[in-house]
Amino acid sequence: MSTPPLHPDVALLRFLIGTWSGTGRGDYPTIEAFSYEEEVRFSSTGKPFLLYTQRTWDPADKRALHAEAGYLRAVGGAAVELVLAQPTGIVEIHDGVVDGGRIEFRSRLVGLTPTAKQVDEVTRTLWVSDDVLSYRLDMAAVGQQLQWHLHAELRRVDG
Amino acid sequence: MSTPPLHPDVALLRFLIGTWSGTGRGDYPTIEAFSYEEEVRFSSTGKPFLLYTQRTWDPADKRALHAEAGYLRAVGGAAVELVLAQPTGIVEIHDGVVDGGRIEFRSRLVGLTPTAKQVDEVTRTLWVSDDVLSYRLDMAAVGQQLQWHLHAELRRVDG
Repeated sequence: MSTPPLHPDVALLRFLIGTWSGTGRGDYPTIEAFSYEEEVRFSSTGKPFLLYTQRTWDPADKRALHAEAGYLRAVGGAAVELVLAQPTGIVEIHDGVVDGGRIEFRSRLVGLTPTAKQVDEVTRTLWVSDDVLSYRLDMAAVGQQLQWHLHAELRRVDG
Repeated sequence: MSTPPLHPDVALLRFLIGTWSGTGRGDYPTIEAFSYEEEVRFSSTGKPFLLYTQRTWDPADKRALHAEAGYLRAVGGAAVELVLAQPTGIVEIHDGVVDGGRIEFRSRLVGLTPTAKQVDEVTRTLWVSDDVLSYRLDMAAVGQQLQWHLHAELRRVDG
């Protein structure tokens, strides 16, 4: 399979393409605050979307913590859609608008497998400034209101 | 990040682990039948699930066709759950039971982004026999009843 050039519709997402690495922190009323190391990757196959993959691990013992995989779709103008799956048994659908180096996603769907933990809503914002990719994730889950859950700052390591 | 040993809960999915490569065929009343080449990968991070990735390309010009990414969760006994995302703007949730080298998934959710094509239901069956991974995917979409859409046979190329 060849690696074709970037699809013109994803030119507005070019600032995301590459591999990003750094650290994050998680907070939630029902758990102890925790730190994590993370790698995020956005890549192109030449079609009008980017592949998104993410994994985090424990800074101390390096054991795998979280992971996600999905796709960021360019759907016309500055509009984008994000679909992703998580090994915790969660799928998410968001739509959003690219505003310079920033994307604010509106949550459209959180779907759960029968054994997944109850998650009611997830909102995501990500932005790139000075070659640092930051994101904030808010979550309503296990009876708690929508609130700050995750924040990370990642530096570009290739791409 | 280290690569830890297989989680005991995914021992029943060990037959899937590795990279699989081969060809498939798609049929649907609304489109012309088509052939594709495909690579499927199931891999472990040491947690109680497998990462699932898939991509297909045109046999003639090698351009990318479809892709999927998600997770196959072992949730107790022979029960499994599958979550996945597709760049066509679709997420799916299935549950199923491992019966020897065969998994029949029952569709729990098909979620669509605002601009995705209408897909109402997807059922998936996969089985491994004589080191050949086969799958069948049935789909109800764009006003058509649930029916045979995709079939492929893939040979293990590593793992």
